[in-house]
Amino acid sequence: MKKRLTLKELTSGILAGNRVTLSKAITLVESVLPEDEEMAAALLEAILPHTGKALRIGITGVPGVGKSTFIEAFGNYLTSNDKKLAVLTIDPSSQLTHGSILGDKTRMESLSKNPNAYIRPSASGSTLGGVAHKTREAALLCEAAGFDIIIIETVGTGQSETAVKNMVDFFLLLMLAGAGDELQGIKKGIMEMADVLVITKADGENKKKAAMAVADYTHALHLFQPPASGWTAKVMTCSALENEGIAEVWNAIVQFETHTKLNGFFLQNRKEQNKTWLYECFNHLLQQEIKSSQALGELINALEKKVESGSMSAYQAAKDMLKNFKKI
Amino acid sequence: MKKRLTLKELTSGILAGNRVTLSKAITLVESVLPEDEEMAAALLEAILPHTGKALRIGITGVPGVGKSTFIEAFGNYLTSNDKKLAVLTIDPSSQLTHGSILGDKTRMESLSKNPNAYIRPSASGSTLGGVAHKTREAALLCEAAGFDIIIIETVGTGQSETAVKNMVDFFLLLMLAGAGDELQGIKKGIMEMADVLVITKADGENKKKAAMAVADYTHALHLFQPPASGWTAKVMTCSALENEGIAEVWNAIVQFETHTKLNGFFLQNRKEQNKTWLYECFNHLLQQEIKSSQALGELINALEKKVESGSMSAYQAAKDMLKNFKKI
Repeated sequence: MKKRLTLKELTSGILAGNRVTLSKAITLVESVLPEDEEMAAALLEAILPHTGKALRIGITGVPGVGKSTFIEAFGNYLTSNDKKLAVLTIDPSSQLTHGSILGDKTRMESLSKNPNAYIRPSASGSTLGGVAHKTREAALLCEAAGFDIIIIETVGTGQSETAVKNMVDFFLLLMLAGAGDELQGIKKGIMEMADVLVITKADGENKKKAAMAVADYTHALHLFQPPASGWTAKVMTCSALENEGIAEVWNAIVQFETHTKLNGFFLQNRKEQNKTWLYECFNHLLQQEIKSSQALGELINALEKKVESGSMSAYQAAKDMLKNFKKI
Repeated sequence: MKKRLTLKELTSGILAGNRVTLSKAITLVESVLPEDEEMAAALLEAILPHTGKALRIGITGVPGVGKSTFIEAFGNYLTSNDKKLAVLTIDPSSQLTHGSILGDKTRMESLSKNPNAYIRPSASGSTLGGVAHKTREAALLCEAAGFDIIIIETVGTGQSETAVKNMVDFFLLLMLAGAGDELQGIKKGIMEMADVLVITKADGENKKKAAMAVADYTHALHLFQPPASGWTAKVMTCSALENEGIAEVWNAIVQFETHTKLNGFFLQNRKEQNKTWLYECFNHLLQQEIKSSQALGELINALEKKVESGSMSAYQAAKDMLKNFKKI
């Protein structure tokens, strides 16, 4: 018999670090049913005082760069150093391919069996904004459940990186060594977000290419304006296969954390992220209200078409939208 | 005696190409007084059927790149080819320096005396969004007044470029020749927006450096993903001093126009820009309503602080915001 947990059971289960409860809570947070949203909101209110202590790390890279292998090696390194790790994924393409839901546990086989690691694939929401919103809340649940490190992984196609950057303390970009061809696969905007850039698969015949890539990317990063964190992005190499460079990546992350906690950026960034989250929620609720009113939805569609074609001014249409919105 | 023009007088004056009326209409559109906004909205509705025929060009570059000199040479070239040209500027920093309002006519002295050119500095709005919104509407008024080319100029500091990109058909980036140092002055994101990149001051001793810069920037552009327009960005040189390269820039713009009109991007882009404009207006009206209610403004401030500090969940705060908004 499938019993629905009460708010109290969910809260105490999460705070006790119960993984079955945690998984149920994330499913609740991901639900789009209005009654679940009410309950999820109450749950988040309840666990909020127990969040904020984990370090949030974003990891991205194009398919083929070796993300799973890296996260597995990195994750096992962290747990062997007494850290408890949760891995969440945002994959805006998963709705189309239905790939990641089934694949996440098998693609990180050893980590998924690690008692100090918890792996959870993304909700396949209808919009990236929706997925991001849910992932942010799933991360808070993991923090309340006592995980020290939260990794939020995404796919490097450029759509979801900004969303992830907006919810993590530190952003790691994985790249392949090789000719200029590889550079083309990644948008400059993503490189600009990275706090550390790691050249993966730096082993065997690849070693020389990897060293060259370090020089190339260091030069490329040099062209960007200095980030608000005051941190100079580093380029490093690693080989998950030979287990090389993993500890160095972690050391760089620790350095980053110390640096940004000292200069105040760390806390300021979290404050701003919380504010972003507020307006994400506001837009989500706004759209929900609009959707729930069929008449308003139809009106907005008609207004959009008129403005697009230039037969009505945007100001007039926006006025109509607002007037009708306040009526529902 | 200063007489306020009626809506009919404004409309007919603009459609007749009367510049005094056009200037008064832009001032009206830029006004933040509620009664002026009503009138401005009605005026835009009236002239809207007479807009859309001009080509809208965005021009940006860091201070010192020679924007005024380029626009003057380029503008005089266009008018000598029977084009009527309007130049509008967006300068988010102008509120601080009060520089551009007084400076625009003197810094483009010969163009400002050209009977087929019209130069208008930006409104110094309180927010970039506000300025952008007004500039878009000023551009429509210029189109209705019969101008063939609308240049929207901005300052290259990175804040206003996206706003300009969202209201033009074609985006031109001016850059200086020189060592890698100059590259640092411009954000990669801006380079990515450019349809044509022009190396200015390519004369005398600079000629060789300019040619090298063409190679460098062509290589740098090559690293970006191909844009939605299907157009390959060009890098060119010009010397406003020796009047070289100006015709070539215009030819590239004409090529771009033909290319994007053929593949459908031109129209699609304008449709999307109109939609953006709709939501800009909606947000503007929303904020206006919020501001007009002191109680709501105070509530939102308090909610923002709670969410920032982590003492309240964003969802709960957003719910409160929405509930109270609908009450006003």
